[in-house]
Amino acid sequence: MKPYVLAVKAVIVNEQGKTLLLRRSSANTSFVGCWEWPGGKVDPGEDFATALVREMKEEAGLDVEITGLAGAMEFEMPKVHVVLLCMNARITAGQIVLSDEHDAWAWAPLAELKDWQLAPRVDEFMYAYATRGTVT
Amino acid sequence: MKPYVLAVKAVIVNEQGKTLLLRRSSANTSFVGCWEWPGGKVDPGEDFATALVREMKEEAGLDVEITGLAGAMEFEMPKVHVVLLCMNARITAGQIVLSDEHDAWAWAPLAELKDWQLAPRVDEFMYAYATRGTVT
Repeated sequence: MKPYVLAVKAVIVNEQGKTLLLRRSSANTSFVGCWEWPGGKVDPGEDFATALVREMKEEAGLDVEITGLAGAMEFEMPKVHVVLLCMNARITAGQIVLSDEHDAWAWAPLAELKDWQLAPRVDEFMYAYATRGTVT
Repeated sequence: MKPYVLAVKAVIVNEQGKTLLLRRSSANTSFVGCWEWPGGKVDPGEDFATALVREMKEEAGLDVEITGLAGAMEFEMPKVHVVLLCMNARITAGQIVLSDEHDAWAWAPLAELKDWQLAPRVDEFMYAYATRGTVT
């Protein structure tokens, strides 16, 4: 049986109802050019909240705090099952600075998310989130 | 800000569409007599899948393996926010043996879950799950 691992994404929505997306760079082996919420795998021994804060700093240069649960989903990878926790978060400090995993950032209006090429697997969840209109 | 912590519950549904519930004993300080899915907090440094398997052994004497994500929810405790991952699981070995946290077990038909006094906070999620009729 494939093991189950945990990953986290930060759902940041600003006062204009726009959500922070990063575009996957050519440093990735898959889904280059697709937009996604920042986040990544929880390291062994790390709790999910710490992982989220760490990933946001690494991928976006931002300090954030979690404000709630946006939702959860699962998908299959070649060697593992991934359970993805999407957490609402707000920026507390910092300016956006990208790592080499991403080559662009944007604030995408939730109401227009269907116009964005989102990374597979998580895209349907993101569209559903946008449709629900939840804004934190 | 209150920290966010992770907890896990095992959603086990048998071939008759019945789900395994445990009744909270008087060893608990709250919700005594209410029924719930087995599970508990993820320990510091522990991954959620290991925690689920451990809790099932401790609380129910059962060996289980995870088969998927049933859903996630959050609730507030006095000192922490809890994100609760409910994982579908199946029993691979063992006979039910309860810890002192519970004083009864039952296989409750999902279709009749509304007739059971479930533990608060998670009850609405459990009723919704039963209504969706998901059986793994």
